Amino acid sequence: MPLNQQILLDQRPSGEVAASNFKLVEVQTPPLQDGQVLVQHHFLSLDPYMRGRMNEGKSYTAPQALGEVMIGGTVGEVIESRSAQFKPGDQVVGMGGWQQYSVVDALQPGALRKVDTTHVPLSYYLGAVGMPGVTAWYGLVKIIEPQAGQTMVVSAATGAVGSAFAALSKARGCRTVGIAGGPDKCKYAVEVLGFDVCVDYKLHENAASLSAALKQHCPDGIDGYFENVGGMVLDAVLGRMNAFGRIALCGMIAGYDGRPVPLSNPALILVSRLKLQGFIVSEHMEVWPEALKELGALVASGKLRPRESIAQGLQAAPEAFMGLLKGKNFGKQLVKLI
Amino acid sequence: MPLNQQILLDQRPSGEVAASNFKLVEVQTPPLQDGQVLVQHHFLSLDPYMRGRMNEGKSYTAPQALGEVMIGGTVGEVIESRSAQFKPGDQVVGMGGWQQYSVVDALQPGALRKVDTTHVPLSYYLGAVGMPGVTAWYGLVKIIEPQAGQTMVVSAATGAVGSAFAALSKARGCRTVGIAGGPDKCKYAVEVLGFDVCVDYKLHENAASLSAALKQHCPDGIDGYFENVGGMVLDAVLGRMNAFGRIALCGMIAGYDGRPVPLSNPALILVSRLKLQGFIVSEHMEVWPEALKELGALVASGKLRPRESIAQGLQAAPEAFMGLLKGKNFGKQLVKLI
Repeated sequence: MPLNQQILLDQRPSGEVAASNFKLVEVQTPPLQDGQVLVQHHFLSLDPYMRGRMNEGKSYTAPQALGEVMIGGTVGEVIESRSAQFKPGDQVVGMGGWQQYSVVDALQPGALRKVDTTHVPLSYYLGAVGMPGVTAWYGLVKIIEPQAGQTMVVSAATGAVGSAFAALSKARGCRTVGIAGGPDKCKYAVEVLGFDVCVDYKLHENAASLSAALKQHCPDGIDGYFENVGGMVLDAVLGRMNAFGRIALCGMIAGYDGRPVPLSNPALILVSRLKLQGFIVSEHMEVWPEALKELGALVASGKLRPRESIAQGLQAAPEAFMGLLKGKNFGKQLVKLI
Repeated sequence: MPLNQQILLDQRPSGEVAASNFKLVEVQTPPLQDGQVLVQHHFLSLDPYMRGRMNEGKSYTAPQALGEVMIGGTVGEVIESRSAQFKPGDQVVGMGGWQQYSVVDALQPGALRKVDTTHVPLSYYLGAVGMPGVTAWYGLVKIIEPQAGQTMVVSAATGAVGSAFAALSKARGCRTVGIAGGPDKCKYAVEVLGFDVCVDYKLHENAASLSAALKQHCPDGIDGYFENVGGMVLDAVLGRMNAFGRIALCGMIAGYDGRPVPLSNPALILVSRLKLQGFIVSEHMEVWPEALKELGALVASGKLRPRESIAQGLQAAPEAFMGLLKGKNFGKQLVKLI
């Protein structure tokens, strides 16, 4: 059995995540039991939700345990199998964590899923045709419920969720406006991802200034907003929402460091009769087949061309993750492990 | 035709409402045209929404015009009619405004509605069996969607909305917890209004302290919250919400004075996968018949015994309104005009 490099959560962050929160170890992969398979990971997904798990306090789910392998989505290849359901060479997606290999009980529901890479590259199953894509789908379709002609806005527009959101929103006939940081991302959002326009939040020092820019680019107001960021961006969007607007809340990176970021004017929720709804896509597994089908079709037809930001080697994961939390990635953040 | 005392909006408030924002005038009631009726108002309703209308900026609807009679709900009696639909002696509810008399076009849909005072006192049609009652009903039934055994919380518990909320929530088998200011209101909430318990927010200097008290009285967490206040109370409740909790936002008095009151930790909306929804009950006229039927039955059966706080005479309206905005009223705030 191969040696397996792993990254453990060594200490919980106080404030910003630091490299010292993680610990790289190497262990022997255990021999397989009946019903188990050994997966070699090709890509590890880095996602903002991991920051919440690193805290001790109340978050989406139980916190990540100290001294254990960091949780994370992975795609890879079965290299050994003692299960009739999988054979060596199968390409699979799972939650293998921050490590090179994982041993998986094949019968555990949802633990491992075979994927077809004929029309969709393997890594996309961690992004556009995976959890981030379904996240965009759920927020748009189930919470925002867009109607053709309405204006949809998403923050972190060039990220994995944002790029899927753009394709899904355009497919529904909506004016689709992104918010991203820097001219390169904004150019990419419009030229490649299909946004009608993309607003560079880095040009704005405060919510009022960003809000004025949004007014210019959303002349009919905003009907639906997918929130990936929180903080100033949410404040700016809130003032531009139309009556009966819907806001799907899925990421609030701005608050993950333990310092709550207030919402300046919650009375606008009442003034504009808004709906704000938080959700975690893993709690809505019933929509995944429908969502993945649409997302896969959008990729196959070229309407969804997500960008990836790929760090090389497991040891690069902590730094790539810290960069993700600061918006340094450009596209879906992955770590290539092979 | 009688002389008619009116209160006009003379200036918009800068910050808190002041008596000088209003102007009392006396005018001749105009002669009736065909299809019109003259109503003598018995009671004027004072409600927090009026504060929003006094601002120039974006609010629920168009602002109250300067120099015009303050908007407001009224109950009264038809004293002269040139409409076949109404006759002198009819008891009616309408939006007569801050004045002693109003001339109403009887054919205008929804302008005037006859009411039956056999089992329900006339003034209740401005409270428990009127707009505030339907407000409680809509927030509870349509937004919170309570299930038996869940825990429901309402702020401003002894107000018109809060007392109706209690009866409606108890009728659905929910643990029902009020938040109110002072021992008298809290005692009344439990002994008369049927709350299981009522938490006195005035005993708490900050949201953390109030939140701890809520934890004690809501041992299973909070599933539904009806927000009438905003500010510290909303912060305190937010930290106690169960996963998938629902919050109906209808009043945010704390923000009406033009100083936005921030929400400290909006990330909790995501962490607990909450739904927050703002609404204005006048935009949901389709539910009024069903809601009024249930509310009337609760009053007739003695299960809903709302309290009223009655100011005497039109000239007392501004002071009573300013008191309402500061939580000085105890029960539905009315002005008796006759």
